Amino acid sequence: MPIEIPRAVRWQEDQVRIIDQTLLPGTYREIHLVEVDDVVEAIQSLRVRGAPAIGIAGALGLAASLKPHLDEPADAFRGRLARHAGRIREARPTAANLTWAIDRLLARAKQAANASNEELWAVLRDEGLAILEEDRAMCRGIGEHGLALLSDGATLLTHCNTGALATGGIGTAMAPVYLAAEKGMGVRVLATETRPLLQGARLTAWELSRIGVDVTVLTDGMAAAAMRELEVDLVMVGADRIVANGDVANKIGTYGLAIAARHHGIPFYVAAPSSTFDFTLKSGAEVPIEQRGADEVRRGFGLQTAPDEVAVYSPAFDVTPAELIAGIVTEKGIFEPGAFDALRG
Amino acid sequence: MPIEIPRAVRWQEDQVRIIDQTLLPGTYREIHLVEVDDVVEAIQSLRVRGAPAIGIAGALGLAASLKPHLDEPADAFRGRLARHAGRIREARPTAANLTWAIDRLLARAKQAANASNEELWAVLRDEGLAILEEDRAMCRGIGEHGLALLSDGATLLTHCNTGALATGGIGTAMAPVYLAAEKGMGVRVLATETRPLLQGARLTAWELSRIGVDVTVLTDGMAAAAMRELEVDLVMVGADRIVANGDVANKIGTYGLAIAARHHGIPFYVAAPSSTFDFTLKSGAEVPIEQRGADEVRRGFGLQTAPDEVAVYSPAFDVTPAELIAGIVTEKGIFEPGAFDALRG
Repeated sequence: MPIEIPRAVRWQEDQVRIIDQTLLPGTYREIHLVEVDDVVEAIQSLRVRGAPAIGIAGALGLAASLKPHLDEPADAFRGRLARHAGRIREARPTAANLTWAIDRLLARAKQAANASNEELWAVLRDEGLAILEEDRAMCRGIGEHGLALLSDGATLLTHCNTGALATGGIGTAMAPVYLAAEKGMGVRVLATETRPLLQGARLTAWELSRIGVDVTVLTDGMAAAAMRELEVDLVMVGADRIVANGDVANKIGTYGLAIAARHHGIPFYVAAPSSTFDFTLKSGAEVPIEQRGADEVRRGFGLQTAPDEVAVYSPAFDVTPAELIAGIVTEKGIFEPGAFDALRG
Repeated sequence: MPIEIPRAVRWQEDQVRIIDQTLLPGTYREIHLVEVDDVVEAIQSLRVRGAPAIGIAGALGLAASLKPHLDEPADAFRGRLARHAGRIREARPTAANLTWAIDRLLARAKQAANASNEELWAVLRDEGLAILEEDRAMCRGIGEHGLALLSDGATLLTHCNTGALATGGIGTAMAPVYLAAEKGMGVRVLATETRPLLQGARLTAWELSRIGVDVTVLTDGMAAAAMRELEVDLVMVGADRIVANGDVANKIGTYGLAIAARHHGIPFYVAAPSSTFDFTLKSGAEVPIEQRGADEVRRGFGLQTAPDEVAVYSPAFDVTPAELIAGIVTEKGIFEPGAFDALRG
């Protein structure tokens, strides 16, 4: 069954075009990113989000942001490249893919030391497009390996959004669901709404219902009851960073789901491209955890949902220890956490 | 330190006056309940909520709703009493206190078989006021027993709202916090926001910050990370129904917190008046669980937070099994779950 897949990030007329995900599910609108400020703002405001999509948008955004400056002297242009790269790289601290993608472009720039501005720019653009294409292929690979974990009629509980909207292709943890839908398999997805920004309710529910998948939304606090009452076969989530010992940093709320899954004997899987691995960190305790602004919780919907004078604890991510994870599904296969030395670059 | 305690339900000029909790924290407004429809609507719409406060509002609301009908023939008036009692009793199916309070009034009515309408009405009103006064005393009792679990500087994580707004007095799980505040003890409260209706963010944060308690709001999905990162000393929540084996039905999300607390070795306490016990049910599996409307999740803030076409799983309560509970704090002492035969009526 052919399925129309939303494209979170694409390259068009030397600009980056993204779906503004802050407007979903109410409004579908694409916006262009031209200046470096646009790119940083789009990433920080989560107009584009999901670790792989951020990496792609950052890389292509870096290229796009340099295009208007090709007439500068070569030194100034290379200085600008370094500045733009630095700003985009810092836009969100936890996502490994953003650093990884920007560093790939910088490495290519270094190789092209004697290139003209135009040549250098083409190298950067091509590297960004290569990252996009590789990501699309990686999503398929993850989907194919992950599909082995699903049977017809399976119920999968997921968190946040790890579908097409989070990547250049059919997603990470949702990639097996896309492939199951293509094959006409009946897979039911329970999508936690994922406060504070509701990526599960707004985005996962939107993109899965669009392709005819049976999707049920529940609040984050309902997940444990759902695991007991709704015959959940497996939990599958994405990852923002996976470190050497197999600990996984992912959207806040993941850790609690992993604990609840263990309590119910439900296998808990993480699906992520190998670019999410960061072997420079030994354990999850070393992962820098971004703190989000208090008003996402106090005034998250433009309404006063908590008094302004109260404090808010709002980490964007939490760390799930390797021992709670049944397997990590990558484009290269399914690995037990801590047993993926094959993935070291 | 004297503390001004909000009064969720009070009796004034033969009517029931409640704080409309759906408007908090933005607006503080009291409303009168006169007709039985007002009472049922206020309970169903959660203008008054919290098991003890519902019981009080139901009992006083039953009396108030009969006042305009004193001129009816005695048979008609008693028929109306039965009808109003039935309607209020059914307004929310899970809260044991509502049934318990209405049944108390009906038992008194039965004793007053030969009373005039006026005499019968006075009996009902006095029984309702007695329930309110007893609840106030019960809250103090729970607070005094629970205070033994708090030390100066303790961090307590709680869920939903179990403070003054949920009761006739200083609350159930928050009663020890009120007493600690009166004594000038420094207790920090982490309040989960409690989706879908945000009673933690809207109500607990409001009433605790009002009396100077250090309160931090977090989304439900952040609780597990908070248990690992924020040195939580104990979890204390309320209960909507406690059954014979010690299983506890409480606000959806409680069960997941209990699992996470166990995982972190943090003691998990339930605080509730003895009227919350229902010895007619053997285990939590027998507790009827109210399902809330899908739009509380899909359009909970008047905004489109999930597509209209997706299904929603939205139980109002979940059941926490006795084995995850360290103790049940009542006005009669702290009991191990399953070891409270002393409380059988």
